[in-house]
Amino acid sequence: MTMSRRSFLTNLSAIGGTALLFAGMKAFGMDVASAVTAPPPLEGGGKGKTVVVLGAGVAGLTAAYELGKAGYDVTVIEARAFAGGRAQTARKGFQLTELTGQSQTCDFDEGLYINHGPWRIPFHQRSTLHYIREFGIELELFNNDNDNSYIYSTKGSGPLANRPVRKAEIAADARGHSAEILAKVVGAGALDQQFSAADRELFIEYLATEGYLDLKDKSYSGTEGRGWITKPGAGLNGGVPSKPHAMKDVLDSQAWRVLSSVSNWDQQHTMFQPKGGMDRLPKGFAERIGDKIRYSTEIEKIRQSAKGVTVSVVDATGKRGTVTADYCINTIPLSVLKMIDNGMSPQHQAAMDGVSYAPVGKIGLQMKRRFWEENHWIYGGHVYTDFGEIGSISLPSTDWLGKKGVLLGYYNFIGDAAKVSALSPADRAKFAVDFGQKIFPEYAESYENAFSVAWHLVKYNLGGWAQWTEEARARDYPVLLRPDRRMYLAGEHMSHIGGWQAGGIESAWMQIDALHRQASAA
Amino acid sequence: MTMSRRSFLTNLSAIGGTALLFAGMKAFGMDVASAVTAPPPLEGGGKGKTVVVLGAGVAGLTAAYELGKAGYDVTVIEARAFAGGRAQTARKGFQLTELTGQSQTCDFDEGLYINHGPWRIPFHQRSTLHYIREFGIELELFNNDNDNSYIYSTKGSGPLANRPVRKAEIAADARGHSAEILAKVVGAGALDQQFSAADRELFIEYLATEGYLDLKDKSYSGTEGRGWITKPGAGLNGGVPSKPHAMKDVLDSQAWRVLSSVSNWDQQHTMFQPKGGMDRLPKGFAERIGDKIRYSTEIEKIRQSAKGVTVSVVDATGKRGTVTADYCINTIPLSVLKMIDNGMSPQHQAAMDGVSYAPVGKIGLQMKRRFWEENHWIYGGHVYTDFGEIGSISLPSTDWLGKKGVLLGYYNFIGDAAKVSALSPADRAKFAVDFGQKIFPEYAESYENAFSVAWHLVKYNLGGWAQWTEEARARDYPVLLRPDRRMYLAGEHMSHIGGWQAGGIESAWMQIDALHRQASAA
Repeated sequence: MTMSRRSFLTNLSAIGGTALLFAGMKAFGMDVASAVTAPPPLEGGGKGKTVVVLGAGVAGLTAAYELGKAGYDVTVIEARAFAGGRAQTARKGFQLTELTGQSQTCDFDEGLYINHGPWRIPFHQRSTLHYIREFGIELELFNNDNDNSYIYSTKGSGPLANRPVRKAEIAADARGHSAEILAKVVGAGALDQQFSAADRELFIEYLATEGYLDLKDKSYSGTEGRGWITKPGAGLNGGVPSKPHAMKDVLDSQAWRVLSSVSNWDQQHTMFQPKGGMDRLPKGFAERIGDKIRYSTEIEKIRQSAKGVTVSVVDATGKRGTVTADYCINTIPLSVLKMIDNGMSPQHQAAMDGVSYAPVGKIGLQMKRRFWEENHWIYGGHVYTDFGEIGSISLPSTDWLGKKGVLLGYYNFIGDAAKVSALSPADRAKFAVDFGQKIFPEYAESYENAFSVAWHLVKYNLGGWAQWTEEARARDYPVLLRPDRRMYLAGEHMSHIGGWQAGGIESAWMQIDALHRQASAA
Repeated sequence: MTMSRRSFLTNLSAIGGTALLFAGMKAFGMDVASAVTAPPPLEGGGKGKTVVVLGAGVAGLTAAYELGKAGYDVTVIEARAFAGGRAQTARKGFQLTELTGQSQTCDFDEGLYINHGPWRIPFHQRSTLHYIREFGIELELFNNDNDNSYIYSTKGSGPLANRPVRKAEIAADARGHSAEILAKVVGAGALDQQFSAADRELFIEYLATEGYLDLKDKSYSGTEGRGWITKPGAGLNGGVPSKPHAMKDVLDSQAWRVLSSVSNWDQQHTMFQPKGGMDRLPKGFAERIGDKIRYSTEIEKIRQSAKGVTVSVVDATGKRGTVTADYCINTIPLSVLKMIDNGMSPQHQAAMDGVSYAPVGKIGLQMKRRFWEENHWIYGGHVYTDFGEIGSISLPSTDWLGKKGVLLGYYNFIGDAAKVSALSPADRAKFAVDFGQKIFPEYAESYENAFSVAWHLVKYNLGGWAQWTEEARARDYPVLLRPDRRMYLAGEHMSHIGGWQAGGIESAWMQIDALHRQASAA
């Protein structure tokens, strides 16, 4: 359900289409070898050559950092007063004005924060971990799956819908009852053609193990892992076991929509977060790149000549100027780039029209006590709901047993995000608190303040991430991967890891490698 | 398999037997209300009354700390030079001499350690978390389940046995193939009597969701969550998907023995560990109890009179003495207590014979680089094997992306532990490294040094934890729960949370409450 929707949306178009283009693109060095785990070597260096990098998000920062290390003379143009792009962390004093003119200043207590942009690093995103390690940023585990958390199903029916139910109960009962049914089917001879007698015996043993069946009669009658009425303790208290839900009730609830044999690739634990906030990663880059980043500088126009790229800029005081360089790495989101006088080729201009950007909303709610830990025994993880305007409620994976905490009150997408974003910040908070109250009775009384973002209403992003249709991925995406003369596009939109920092980093690696080969050949 | 074996052994006897005794034991206040999450209030306090606590493990420390807070004058007798009992952390310089006379001094690099006693705190062990919070001990998540880790099955057959296979592959394929088979059975009408048409449709949808089936033909053909041949990246690299194993191969491998609908209660994530080592918990107690703990003091004899308890002790210099108190909390493991001239009632003496203690072995292996993270992308969790002498290999859940690391090279029980413990420390290390090499080719070349423990060979423990047969749990355990005049037994052995610190803490809470009621009535 909600946790996989983003994955669904971004992957919808990821399969097929591009295969035909593989052969041709190998000429650009853009084949599967780009599934790399370290930056390209940039052999020979870039001494005496200049590069202007547009945007100091993680893609731009990666490009500037690596090109700088290789000896290129780099200038980074960044519209915001800080680096990171979407990789932001809201703490006390953090300000955001959305396109509607509504402003918020974060008022969380000192030490509390929400990562309202990227917030997770899966173990397999080696590129992101490469810089975490290089910069010595401390990681902590992000608890991305919590069997003791709740499912709140609004689209189901029966006694288990429209109320919080522990994920462990649904997992144990859906799988337990299914194992019982299948074990009886196997035992009755239904698979005699398909499997040998020895394998059928192993099959039944597997089902009994998976589903905690009684091996004698292959029946499922619950298991301690789904929870206890009274948990075992000292003395004579051996615990009072819980009873399973009927399969009909589990099916009707639709709470099983959160179950899967294994998590999707981009949602698998083990998952990490930087201790202290996701912005520690861009800060690590920015400290090393230093004064080569020109902050609070907007781009008005981009032009190319036979010899280089000229970018017309205006700073926060209204002062205009130009930056000229031999090459350009352009990491501006396509949603924004389309609206700039970018001087790009007609092919590139047309290709940019093929991509739309996802409306995405998040809200951090400061709670004066960690009732989800204290009363509900839920430490991190997500409350799963099929109510799209909430999407999921996520409990913080940091400061365990602390006093206060900031939880993620909603994480919504597309139409749901558009709808909720139309509310004022105060009304968004009220909406989130009202829904949360259905799951946690302590919600309203514990709520203190909120910080929300609607990424589609953020001036320099105009969306959470690029959404490629299958058609556009086949037709337009390969065009944008090719340089436009001396300009290379990078960012999560230039990857198959859309919406993740790893997509930005790996696309930057790909494009600086291509730029370096062009520059070295020149 | 191995991860649940301990749970199996300790729970084997937990069910049944005791139910009959419930009514009678309610007179002692020992009914299910003892499933508590906070210490008893000890109303009225204990001013002017003395208690001698035998043993400064977590049970003894809990009793001494709470009785002290209530005003009792407490003396703790501890045989070791430090507090904690089995809650030990081996770091550079930590010394252990087993009963065989073999001595080890831990030689890990500064900052590295192994918790060779208790190492995990499940989210539901509220009693342990109570003190973690009270003492302000920082927690970090312990990654107790890792889909990207390996299963190494030695008892299976076929192409997936006797080699490392990712857990995600087995989970996806065992469940995916099963879902396909069951969905086809449901579709063919086998459950028409059991479920309505609407529920059958939901059932198939559930199976398709769980098993990533193609909804059109209900077939399973793999899923990205089981891993990629080439993972998706930047540019045209949309990834090369992996192919599922045949169900026959999965069944024959027996690797499915690690799968279950939900984890057992005591193995469920979310799980924690104190940052810096498990001994931070006993240290938290010991700092607060202060000089009321008499370290390096062995107990030679225990006697009771109508007025109190007298304990004859001898310190490390050979100096003898006695400690007399109104009451006694006795937390000495029964394995050890049996061998002391304890002066207990014939009923208690006989009951102690009913319990045996589990041989348990662990080894920490210092590796000069974290190859499991760098090369295998495994961050914490366990390598699951059915080879009992290894049991499981566990990767550290701390210092992510660090340089070196100490992993748990084996965790064995009962006969397997007895067998491995007969080796010298050097040979235990060689044994662990030789086996690990089958899974990780970097094992031998990375190995630096080791520290091992065989708890059954540790003088003041003589075993890892109490093992109650069903018979002894029914017959002897209730006898030991009752005070022997002015002496109350506490420890994990006096609980249904055997082998966990929570068992020690909760049994201490139970017994100080009983002691306080006896003392208040006196």
